[in-house]
Amino acid sequence: MKESIQLAHGGGAAQSAELIRELFFRYFSNEILLQAEDAAVLPMSGGKLAFTTDGFTVSPRQFPGGDIGKLAVCGTCNDLAMMGARPRYMSAGFILEEGFALSELEALVRSMAEELAHNGCQIVTGDTKVVPRGSADGLYITTSAVGSVEIPSLSAAALQPGHRIVVSGPVGDHGTVIFAQREGMDLQTDLVSDCASLWPAVQEIIQNGIPLVAMRDATRGGLSAVLHEWAQQSSVSLTVQQDAIPVRPEVLGICELLGFEPYHLANEGTFVLAVEARHAAELVEVLRTKTACHQASIIGEVCEGHQGKVILETAWGTRRFMEMGSGELLPRIC
Amino acid sequence: MKESIQLAHGGGAAQSAELIRELFFRYFSNEILLQAEDAAVLPMSGGKLAFTTDGFTVSPRQFPGGDIGKLAVCGTCNDLAMMGARPRYMSAGFILEEGFALSELEALVRSMAEELAHNGCQIVTGDTKVVPRGSADGLYITTSAVGSVEIPSLSAAALQPGHRIVVSGPVGDHGTVIFAQREGMDLQTDLVSDCASLWPAVQEIIQNGIPLVAMRDATRGGLSAVLHEWAQQSSVSLTVQQDAIPVRPEVLGICELLGFEPYHLANEGTFVLAVEARHAAELVEVLRTKTACHQASIIGEVCEGHQGKVILETAWGTRRFMEMGSGELLPRIC
Repeated sequence: MKESIQLAHGGGAAQSAELIRELFFRYFSNEILLQAEDAAVLPMSGGKLAFTTDGFTVSPRQFPGGDIGKLAVCGTCNDLAMMGARPRYMSAGFILEEGFALSELEALVRSMAEELAHNGCQIVTGDTKVVPRGSADGLYITTSAVGSVEIPSLSAAALQPGHRIVVSGPVGDHGTVIFAQREGMDLQTDLVSDCASLWPAVQEIIQNGIPLVAMRDATRGGLSAVLHEWAQQSSVSLTVQQDAIPVRPEVLGICELLGFEPYHLANEGTFVLAVEARHAAELVEVLRTKTACHQASIIGEVCEGHQGKVILETAWGTRRFMEMGSGELLPRIC
Repeated sequence: MKESIQLAHGGGAAQSAELIRELFFRYFSNEILLQAEDAAVLPMSGGKLAFTTDGFTVSPRQFPGGDIGKLAVCGTCNDLAMMGARPRYMSAGFILEEGFALSELEALVRSMAEELAHNGCQIVTGDTKVVPRGSADGLYITTSAVGSVEIPSLSAAALQPGHRIVVSGPVGDHGTVIFAQREGMDLQTDLVSDCASLWPAVQEIIQNGIPLVAMRDATRGGLSAVLHEWAQQSSVSLTVQQDAIPVRPEVLGICELLGFEPYHLANEGTFVLAVEARHAAELVEVLRTKTACHQASIIGEVCEGHQGKVILETAWGTRRFMEMGSGELLPRIC
């Protein structure tokens, strides 16, 4: 193969076939994919399906803790996991800029394959387009996935007063890492993105029989976006103790320096759960001891009144509305 | 809403929510989409599923006979239809360039909605990313779809000697229209792209009880790419009568002028079928009289020997191998 992507790699003829065979089939190999039909036929039976899609245009494409390939698989599988669905089958659509290095593409495809394995998910169908030099910023990946629903009743509209809000770990790591890398800041720490696949943790919650009300990963818009969506969709308010939100010191440091709030920063692994009060402590215990979420914490509860609002209680006992965040929060971080 | 896309429309906060609500929910409205969860839960039960994805980077975005929105829905639904699957649920991922006109986006979204209706398909989940000015050529759309398989045994690897090859209509219209528009050529004809949804025709074939061996739409790489894929995947050769391939005079004219072969040009509606000899005439009859495929024709048959090759028989009785096409066939046409 050539060393960089040519327009012909997207042309549907011989060079396209070579790229598919030599790269995608090699790393994503499975029986369904190798059928190479127009559409993949999935051997699924019964039960409800979940279906989701996500586009990845992140820059930089490599960052401490991951790359755009890992991110694409995590992000899309996590959207399924957050609906209580086991990730099963994925499609991958690549938009490549002419001249993109094949070595980098291979590294990203390898990352994707590794992360798929953590989810027990397979890429069964794909598409590659090549656009002329200057018409894309390197590469964009759009992944879609189908999963089988194992927790049937999760809903952002199901929160009721008294439910507890749990966050799975520190917020803002991904946003901080990407921001620092973009701006050429040397954080002089080992801070890495929280980019991770969440299905293993969700599976642990299921196996421990803990019923959940809602789950959502705090990606674009951060913790604040999830809390506001829930407050609005469930017509309730959420009260959150600012001190209870786990934030790493280095993230807090950057935020204080630059005037950000950690709960507005993007995450790629940290997720938020709503649970009945009587199950909250056990949920945190399971997350802390049986999954990678060692800093899982109860951060607040669902309340009546102030519908659609999120109320932040500070350590000094003051209360204020958490801002929803609007406009461009940071240089694009997902 | 503002008149053009801002970076904040992809930021996951207030302006993203507005774009989703005011544009996507308005045109794609359906119960599942409006749940607005991380993943759509599909009320499907039993039976095999088909799953496919396709990316659309076409330029120009509007062309005689369609636009990139219509193309995205047709292309993805057609990949399902070609596997004998009824299109059911679609995801749409938009990558938008900062500054993209909202009026154009609305027109494309409207096209998508219209074409979805022809397929009985719904967009149930989506994603929007905005990249900085200069980082994309306007907009890219990646659509994925899930369908229910109604013809279970179609396969590009199932062709056997004696099977007949049928093409549903004239080849090369889409490629010619796009090429002419790109090059600023005035064709002085009413030639339009063949861009169309194929599920209605496939449904008619099913309802008439005609068993099929394989089906594929002749998109990138044209008729030649489909025939070569079949010959290779089934380890057979295909013999095609050049005169039997329907080609419109204006397409033939352009091809003669520029040294193209019509069977290398992209199509967006014309499809190819493999069928047992005893069903071939009835298949053509059904296509011609009960669907929009009025020029459907038997163009050749499956043979032994010369595995993986396509043999073109000319009107003068000469035989030669059809070239597979390699490299960039035309300025990008899909």
